[in-house]
Amino acid sequence: MATHAHTLAAIAERFGLNLRGDHAVTISGVATLARAGADELGFLANPRYRSELAGTRAAAVVLRESDAESAPCPCLIATDPYLAFARIAALFDPHPAPAPGIHASAAIDPTARIDPGAHIGPFVSIGARSRIEAGAVVGAGCVIGADCVVGAGSELVARVTLVVRVRLGQRVLVHPGAVLGADGFGLARDGAHWIKVPQLGGVAIGDDCEIGANTTIDRGALDDTVLEEDVRLDNQIQIAHNVRIGAHTAMAGCVGVAGSTTIGRNCMIAGAVGINGHIEICDDVVVHAAGVVLQSITQPGEYASGTLLQDHRGWRRNAARFKQLDEMARKLHTLAKD
Amino acid sequence: MATHAHTLAAIAERFGLNLRGDHAVTISGVATLARAGADELGFLANPRYRSELAGTRAAAVVLRESDAESAPCPCLIATDPYLAFARIAALFDPHPAPAPGIHASAAIDPTARIDPGAHIGPFVSIGARSRIEAGAVVGAGCVIGADCVVGAGSELVARVTLVVRVRLGQRVLVHPGAVLGADGFGLARDGAHWIKVPQLGGVAIGDDCEIGANTTIDRGALDDTVLEEDVRLDNQIQIAHNVRIGAHTAMAGCVGVAGSTTIGRNCMIAGAVGINGHIEICDDVVVHAAGVVLQSITQPGEYASGTLLQDHRGWRRNAARFKQLDEMARKLHTLAKD
Amino acid sequence: MATHAHTLAAIAERFGLNLRGDHAVTISGVATLARAGADELGFLANPRYRSELAGTRAAAVVLRESDAESAPCPCLIATDPYLAFARIAALFDPHPAPAPGIHASAAIDPTARIDPGAHIGPFVSIGARSRIEAGAVVGAGCVIGADCVVGAGSELVARVTLVVRVRLGQRVLVHPGAVLGADGFGLARDGAHWIKVPQLGGVAIGDDCEIGANTTIDRGALDDTVLEEDVRLDNQIQIAHNVRIGAHTAMAGCVGVAGSTTIGRNCMIAGAVGINGHIEICDDVVVHAAGVVLQSITQPGEYASGTLLQDHRGWRRNAARFKQLDEMARKLHTLAKD
Repeated sequence: MATHAHTLAAIAERFGLNLRGDHAVTISGVATLARAGADELGFLANPRYRSELAGTRAAAVVLRESDAESAPCPCLIATDPYLAFARIAALFDPHPAPAPGIHASAAIDPTARIDPGAHIGPFVSIGARSRIEAGAVVGAGCVIGADCVVGAGSELVARVTLVVRVRLGQRVLVHPGAVLGADGFGLARDGAHWIKVPQLGGVAIGDDCEIGANTTIDRGALDDTVLEEDVRLDNQIQIAHNVRIGAHTAMAGCVGVAGSTTIGRNCMIAGAVGINGHIEICDDVVVHAAGVVLQSITQPGEYASGTLLQDHRGWRRNAARFKQLDEMARKLHTLAKD
Repeated sequence: MATHAHTLAAIAERFGLNLRGDHAVTISGVATLARAGADELGFLANPRYRSELAGTRAAAVVLRESDAESAPCPCLIATDPYLAFARIAALFDPHPAPAPGIHASAAIDPTARIDPGAHIGPFVSIGARSRIEAGAVVGAGCVIGADCVVGAGSELVARVTLVVRVRLGQRVLVHPGAVLGADGFGLARDGAHWIKVPQLGGVAIGDDCEIGANTTIDRGALDDTVLEEDVRLDNQIQIAHNVRIGAHTAMAGCVGVAGSTTIGRNCMIAGAVGINGHIEICDDVVVHAAGVVLQSITQPGEYASGTLLQDHRGWRRNAARFKQLDEMARKLHTLAKD
Repeated sequence: MATHAHTLAAIAERFGLNLRGDHAVTISGVATLARAGADELGFLANPRYRSELAGTRAAAVVLRESDAESAPCPCLIATDPYLAFARIAALFDPHPAPAPGIHASAAIDPTARIDPGAHIGPFVSIGARSRIEAGAVVGAGCVIGADCVVGAGSELVARVTLVVRVRLGQRVLVHPGAVLGADGFGLARDGAHWIKVPQLGGVAIGDDCEIGANTTIDRGALDDTVLEEDVRLDNQIQIAHNVRIGAHTAMAGCVGVAGSTTIGRNCMIAGAVGINGHIEICDDVVVHAAGVVLQSITQPGEYASGTLLQDHRGWRRNAARFKQLDEMARKLHTLAKD
């Protein structure tokens, strides 16, 4: 697509990068080092892929100064090649903005307010008193209940549910299958039976947040469940009621956070981590993959739990010994004293 | 909303609670101790929040007898404040029951039977021979396949799928994105390839069950997958084919239960627990967060597995040693004998 | 249903099984040993159920030669009774193929191509340039974005989303709630904020794959996310961008695979396993339930991690000792030297 072609010089200037080599090279797409063709820009950010540099057929490569001399082609020098690449790649993203307007099939409550600059796709339903702001996109099959807000420039890609009292800030991106504002899991025991605790709060999502596919965020029991600005959640995450997540915190797939827990700013929660309810995690915490956080974390740093993978037979022997670990420690203590 | 205001005396009488202080106080909502305003009722159930009692601006507080003297306001005395609060809060839940009737857009098989007292929302499809009973609510975007039953007073909030042969009892509540009755994961190896084992059973859900958002419950291979009455499942749970869960058992988010396992009554399964297939868990079992249950449990009690979170560097050293644990135990045994 | 009745002799001949006992017995359904009635065929594959053989009321049983003499009824002898049963059961699966045609409510882009032999259900939307091939079924509420392909004979059961650039091979089966082709989770840090890395790749799913309910498969950042032929994924699985899964590999529910990881052919990944990003797992690997795979696996075999469930009090003591494990090992080493 010629309309997307840019000279290397133009790209360098636009993103403030140093260019080494032929300025006139034309770039019409981006690709990995291994697969880039003669009109494509590659990048080298992760040292794991350094061995692919010499053999690349890319028209040019974005990389660090220190890797430039190994490149067989023109280079764009960046202190953070991944960040530079992210910005450049956006030039080549064919994602077209859907046209404003309301699809004829949409079922919209008469008390809902839809900005004329918003896009409402087919088979969307929107409940009482909800508001869709300018430039927002509500894709096919979304269900928006009562008293919700989709802020300006936000996008619900498709089949997203905002159950009730969910307020999204601006430029929030929500992927298909996500469910925001479902009942928190609140139960009280009444003799032999459970009775349901009404969930009267809502969900408040800050500007620039991203919510992954099939992720669920329950609404609060009394107060809101809150994501501050620029929180990034991957797919299949469960955020229980009354959780609060600080700005710029990111969570990878399959994380679960139990109710009423507060997580700080700038945290990185790796995949499949489980976080207990009613605890606090301070700012700048990293939890490694599949870690289980049972208690509050009060110091920034990196944390982990679990054991390492090994062959099944060896694992069985060691796992059996784990059950004797306290006994082993006592025996060892006794021996050391003798 | 004046229509929702109640005097403290009326609330005390309705729920059989002792009132200490001004009977004429008017309550128009419920809130946490920290945020309750001058016309709202707070509650103190979890001792973790006791420090918030003295400073609350609530009109009144529901609490235990032993906490009453520290309250700066009128009190409703309850032996179980959380239960009392759950009941009182329901007075203030604005959730309106949708009106009976079938939305014009719904696609309903001519052989399906819809009770005139049921509500069918927009973009709902209902398959052959399925039955929606009186007072049931089928929210926007639900897909109900063939041979399903939605019992009286049950609610599918929105975008729920009942694939085929799914029978819900009365007053069952299913949250958005849940999928009940999909094919169980049955495969037989045929040389190099898999062949699919037909899944001919269904799903039977007892009265008063609750199924969380994006939870999945597969239908049985031959017999049904069964939830007895009053089973409570949180979000993102996976229940495989032919599982049977006993009455009043509750599971928190992200639990997975593999095929053909039977779980007893009154069990509490915490978040992110994994339960193996083809095992039995007896009544009154508690499994703590992220526990992995590989074998049957035959005694009531509390169970756990896993290791505790620690700093990443320390964890790496200990995790490396876990692989030597059996060897350590043998060495220790030898030393102790010498 | 008389139309589904078959004589035992006909079944034996059709599937190449030896018949022991009355050839004229008529079979009108399949069931478990415990519940089979007088016109139903039972099966014994898992030795766990051998004790149910003597008491079965089944008309006949599929089993191994070695179990035949204990059967109280005619037998079909199979070297792999589970496989034989899977094939026979398909005779009794009432699943009717939906009629070709496009439901009147469907919203289809004028540039999409729908084969006249495909079935498009109610409330389906299909985007620009997408193609639905002969015999494909797109069930109620599915959303198919731009530039997708649903190959011949494939089925999207209901409420499946193919976001963009998702290409399914032939006879692919996708269960409700699955989301294929959502944005991969690519973020670059720009000072205090995250910026999104454009996700320009797609998803390529080979012939005969099966994707479970509410499973998510993100599209690649640059190249595609790839499932080779006959890959079988259960429910609630998360496959991140640029993952590649080899032919005939099967994964049970709740597995998570982080980005850019390659998994070999014929692997079996049990439930709730977590697999790190940027690693490689070779062919013929089995990972046991809830295992966490942090590093590449280069040898076929069975692997596991984690600890075993025990009573909560005992577990707490042992888990506390795990934090001292390296110290214990050092102390033991010192003692052994003395």
